[in-house]
Amino acid sequence: MPYIPLEEHLPGITGLLEYRKDTAAPIRELTQFLLRGPSSLTEGERELIATIVSHRNECRFCTAAHTAAADILLEEEETSARVKQDIATAPVSDKMKALLTIAALVQQGGKYVTPESIEKAKDLGATDIEIHDTVLIAALFCLYNRYVDGLSTVAPTDPGFYKGLGERLKNHGYNRLPQGYDHLKKKA
Amino acid sequence: MPYIPLEEHLPGITGLLEYRKDTAAPIRELTQFLLRGPSSLTEGERELIATIVSHRNECRFCTAAHTAAADILLEEEETSARVKQDIATAPVSDKMKALLTIAALVQQGGKYVTPESIEKAKDLGATDIEIHDTVLIAALFCLYNRYVDGLSTVAPTDPGFYKGLGERLKNHGYNRLPQGYDHLKKKA
Repeated sequence: MPYIPLEEHLPGITGLLEYRKDTAAPIRELTQFLLRGPSSLTEGERELIATIVSHRNECRFCTAAHTAAADILLEEEETSARVKQDIATAPVSDKMKALLTIAALVQQGGKYVTPESIEKAKDLGATDIEIHDTVLIAALFCLYNRYVDGLSTVAPTDPGFYKGLGERLKNHGYNRLPQGYDHLKKKA
Repeated sequence: MPYIPLEEHLPGITGLLEYRKDTAAPIRELTQFLLRGPSSLTEGERELIATIVSHRNECRFCTAAHTAAADILLEEEETSARVKQDIATAPVSDKMKALLTIAALVQQGGKYVTPESIEKAKDLGATDIEIHDTVLIAALFCLYNRYVDGLSTVAPTDPGFYKGLGERLKNHGYNRLPQGYDHLKKKA
């Protein structure tokens, strides 16, 4: 049971974003830009960063939602599963391994990011902006995970729910659904 | 030395917000609303939440900046110092002690927030919105602290720097300084 009164049909972050629209607007905008805006990282790669951080924070709702989004964007389910298991042996590029490693360090705390981890990413071709965005996406999901679990929101157990939410995140991104999309909101 | 090229005269978060204005805009907007927007918590109380989280995350820049802002808003330096030392015996209301305790739990992770900690805050008069905002402010500073330290930004050692920044946060809030305020930007 959530610690504050949220709409029952809106679990996880979805109820929080409806509860306080003034704070939801900039949170949505920041997420839309970082995860769907112009970037040399694919949308799938950026969802993997969201996934590894949420997984390490043990946030069930966010992990399931962003795993689903990553799987739909990558058109397979192996990569996200193996990233969560072990970044070093996951089927992603060496540059992505270095960036996912940085994200996992940010999850522990800002001071855990070492000069060596940054140097390695740069040696493997990561740009300054890619490093910046990786750190900020990881930091943003440290916010999300704490927001979702700190207020004890509900995480549905039905995998179909997250599949629907993942589809919505692929097709509509992180912006608020416009009027007339209430059927999608209900499903998500 | 920061891990990415930031303007040397802009330490801590200030350089990051200039580096990537597309992400800075919603971050500023969210912070301005949560820390300076309409609320039944005073601006000083909200800066104390930012302070305790930054302190527990051992983020030197953010701790010094928000301690300075809290001190200026509260017109004394004892409260912030004692909150950082021990929430239970700090000279704040019982409701604020309960909210600062929740913020400190969020710092550890969303799942650390217990039903008992929420119940206690509600018994002491905290509203749902106050609890929501406390959790979200704490989560936001978990983002900031990781952003600032994860990219290894510089934290000035001169206390005068943070006093200037605290004054700016009191007088101008978290919005971007308009053109013509460059002297303030340089000082901060």
